[in-house]
Amino acid sequence: MAKIKVGVNGYGTIGKRVATAVSMQDDMELVGVTKTRPSFEAKTAVAAGIALYVPAENVEKFDKAGIKVAGTIDDLIGKVDIMVDATPGDFGEEYKAKYQAAGIKGIFQGGEEHGLTGVSFNSTANYKESWGVQFSRVVSCNTTGLLRTLSLLDKEYKIENAYVTIVRRAADPGDSKTGPVNALEPSVSLPTHHGLDVKSIMPWLDITSMAIKCSTTLMHIQAVVVKLGKEVTTEEVLDLFKKAPRVRLVSSKDGIKSTAQVMELARELGRSRSDMYEICVWSDGIKVVGDTLYYYQAVHQESDVIPENIDCIRSMCKSMEGPESVAKTNKALGIDH
Amino acid sequence: MAKIKVGVNGYGTIGKRVATAVSMQDDMELVGVTKTRPSFEAKTAVAAGIALYVPAENVEKFDKAGIKVAGTIDDLIGKVDIMVDATPGDFGEEYKAKYQAAGIKGIFQGGEEHGLTGVSFNSTANYKESWGVQFSRVVSCNTTGLLRTLSLLDKEYKIENAYVTIVRRAADPGDSKTGPVNALEPSVSLPTHHGLDVKSIMPWLDITSMAIKCSTTLMHIQAVVVKLGKEVTTEEVLDLFKKAPRVRLVSSKDGIKSTAQVMELARELGRSRSDMYEICVWSDGIKVVGDTLYYYQAVHQESDVIPENIDCIRSMCKSMEGPESVAKTNKALGIDH
Repeated sequence: MAKIKVGVNGYGTIGKRVATAVSMQDDMELVGVTKTRPSFEAKTAVAAGIALYVPAENVEKFDKAGIKVAGTIDDLIGKVDIMVDATPGDFGEEYKAKYQAAGIKGIFQGGEEHGLTGVSFNSTANYKESWGVQFSRVVSCNTTGLLRTLSLLDKEYKIENAYVTIVRRAADPGDSKTGPVNALEPSVSLPTHHGLDVKSIMPWLDITSMAIKCSTTLMHIQAVVVKLGKEVTTEEVLDLFKKAPRVRLVSSKDGIKSTAQVMELARELGRSRSDMYEICVWSDGIKVVGDTLYYYQAVHQESDVIPENIDCIRSMCKSMEGPESVAKTNKALGIDH
Repeated sequence: MAKIKVGVNGYGTIGKRVATAVSMQDDMELVGVTKTRPSFEAKTAVAAGIALYVPAENVEKFDKAGIKVAGTIDDLIGKVDIMVDATPGDFGEEYKAKYQAAGIKGIFQGGEEHGLTGVSFNSTANYKESWGVQFSRVVSCNTTGLLRTLSLLDKEYKIENAYVTIVRRAADPGDSKTGPVNALEPSVSLPTHHGLDVKSIMPWLDITSMAIKCSTTLMHIQAVVVKLGKEVTTEEVLDLFKKAPRVRLVSSKDGIKSTAQVMELARELGRSRSDMYEICVWSDGIKVVGDTLYYYQAVHQESDVIPENIDCIRSMCKSMEGPESVAKTNKALGIDH
């Protein structure tokens, strides 16, 4: 079977990781990536042998910076079966029209509205719903994290309602422009979009979210309170999470007391860019009281959606079933669940 | 009427603030404070004319440091009607025995267990319960913050249950030893003590709490979800909080987007040590959906319990009724509610 020809539009935080992940799949070919400015990331991409496509009007700028360009963004669109669009939010409409005109498929990210594609994607919750579609959308990092655990809890125990407080990091680790530096900033517009976005995939779910931005760059933490349709034990939930795809149990008893140690663990695992693709749930921070379950999970903002993008490509290209794709992606990325 | 003779045992974060607040009340006399080590705070206390009492075995150490001592801790115990005990947690038992032997009253802080005194104190929730008692306990900063709003909500609407996620600061502003510096640390032992401690004053309340420690030194933020016994509007809750004692409404529309601006506001108000005694609730972050209320409030860890300590003295000494004491304390401390 021919390899799926994949392009990545936008080589920022998500785009560069999707590009690396695509290049690690034996059933995909990374045709090229796009970049608008001749930044250090454009240089490292070219140095790594990745074909770089740029806006027609910027070719000269890249030439002057001594960065070798393979062609324009339109050239790349003409060469691929599917484009993973990791451009900044709100460019979606414009690029969707271009992909449509070229007759290629397109995957958008959580920065775009669900309405752009009409279907959103999460490997655990709804792999099949993107089967064969021309356009889909991989939901944001926080939403992906919530779906990995909530979809299983709902399937197994039926969720009556869920309250989530998201303690958000202030900035990407490579960002030195954003704050707060030493403060907490509540998202006053309630309920926040995170719970609503979970409903783009589980519309029946009664879920509300609040969010507070914090002075940290590593990961988000979600404090989750779930009222279940039946009484279960803490041990049963622990067993469910043990079997959950892309959920990693961590324990403060192992010395993983904070997001700092979770990120240190990712480094020890030898992951590309030291990423933690799994949602990390504290096993000693799971507690059921009556019919209510409490737990904490950490979300690596830059990377948890990367395996979902790979699976989404396969679902849209009808190349294999969900469990098979998840296992294949995991193996390629070193997720040894 | 004779002034109430007050001593403060321990001159740390809480003790030094209680001492200042006592000295600002016209019905109280600050007899002296205690300090175990000749730190910069011992020096500034003496420079401010406060009589300093130290452990008998440390008198020489203070002499050598050139700090004038008024006597030993036992001397101070012999001179006061009531001691506000702000020693580090777990010294309570030992000092309680000394106060008992001397026949004086004693107020402990939230670091001690409720069981030490059998009665805990909050001005809004249960001023009368400490009336005339020999020993009471002012609950911790987070518990004080929760009681200020929850006790009113329960009185007005009957709370069915409450979930609180506490986003905790990592350290006091004057502390350079503690972390995390750039991470989030969940309190995995669930439910956390905060909700349980609210029950030391409102034992009938169905409340659970989770907590996450963050890289900030300014304030805590509490994300509160309350299911009410009746349907109310967001405006009704806003009106209730407007009338609440020691609750200050702040708004992101006024530029108060985070705890950094709350603390800047306290500086503008000219408060002692730039403290924010009130619990600050974001007025544009209050939202009722059906019978469930969501809101954020910021807690100034060093100072919200200070006015409660003053009121607790008056309740224990039977000097005046609750509303009268709250108004008097507020006026003295510049809380212009």
